[in-house]
Amino acid sequence: MAEKTLNDLFLAQLKDIYYAEKKIYRTLPKMAKATKVPELKQAFTAHREETQGHIDRLEQVFEMIGKRAQTKPCEAINGIVAEGEETIEDFGESAAIDAGLVAAGQAVEHYEMARYGALIAWANQLGVPKAAALLNETLQEEMKADKLLTEIGATQADKAARMAA
Amino acid sequence: MAEKTLNDLFLAQLKDIYYAEKKIYRTLPKMAKATKVPELKQAFTAHREETQGHIDRLEQVFEMIGKRAQTKPCEAINGIVAEGEETIEDFGESAAIDAGLVAAGQAVEHYEMARYGALIAWANQLGVPKAAALLNETLQEEMKADKLLTEIGATQADKAARMAA
Repeated sequence: MAEKTLNDLFLAQLKDIYYAEKKIYRTLPKMAKATKVPELKQAFTAHREETQGHIDRLEQVFEMIGKRAQTKPCEAINGIVAEGEETIEDFGESAAIDAGLVAAGQAVEHYEMARYGALIAWANQLGVPKAAALLNETLQEEMKADKLLTEIGATQADKAARMAA
Repeated sequence: MAEKTLNDLFLAQLKDIYYAEKKIYRTLPKMAKATKVPELKQAFTAHREETQGHIDRLEQVFEMIGKRAQTKPCEAINGIVAEGEETIEDFGESAAIDAGLVAAGQAVEHYEMARYGALIAWANQLGVPKAAALLNETLQEEMKADKLLTEIGATQADKAARMAA
């Protein structure tokens, strides 16, 4: 067996984030449903549309490197999503749910930011700048989504604290 | 049962990150052992010392809010660490291992950045600015660790790509 290379690592992580994006696409409606705050509901709904675009871009990257688009179970995103579901279960009926949902969304965004950051660096190193550019479009959207959640979170946490006081 | 508040959410997530930091403390030696790159080995070893400081700070925060320091299993960090271990298993003997370890470390740092970001916002909202300040010291160290990994990663990915070419 030939020694594994950065190409193999790139492919393995591409499959990992492809799985993660599909999982996130399925999870976002549950998060949108769990909140009564219109801005947050809208943020999750809009991000779901973006997520479909992220899935499409990943399929383009698979094509660019001549590989079949394939998922690989990603235990990290499964754990992050499971924690989000636990938050909905534990805080779903309370005033703190929106702060909890924001934090759950931020954990998802940060995982993706880490993964896309590495993939972009590797795509450039491997001489596939077009793939790097596509992945960077997604990274920018993940960062924007995280920033929006932070802004909504600041407002919601303030509201929850006033109710708790 | 009284309705849950932001205080309860803050405590739940404090237990979650307390578990995560302890898990990271146990995992970093495996990551340091898996690389032959001195800068990376040193980064993991130094971050382990910092992590002990993060654990101590969390115990101070528990004290500040009058609660016993307690862990709560964190499926997210378990998943992130499991993926790192899988990378070591799959790429441990290859030239791509260091790029893989950098990415694994970045996934850990990003998870922590998301969690500490939320905890800091909530501590301020809940009127515990001293807790927020302590947690922010840790957040700054996590961000610095992530940046250092990115720098080391750029060098290592370049090296791996040259060997793959």
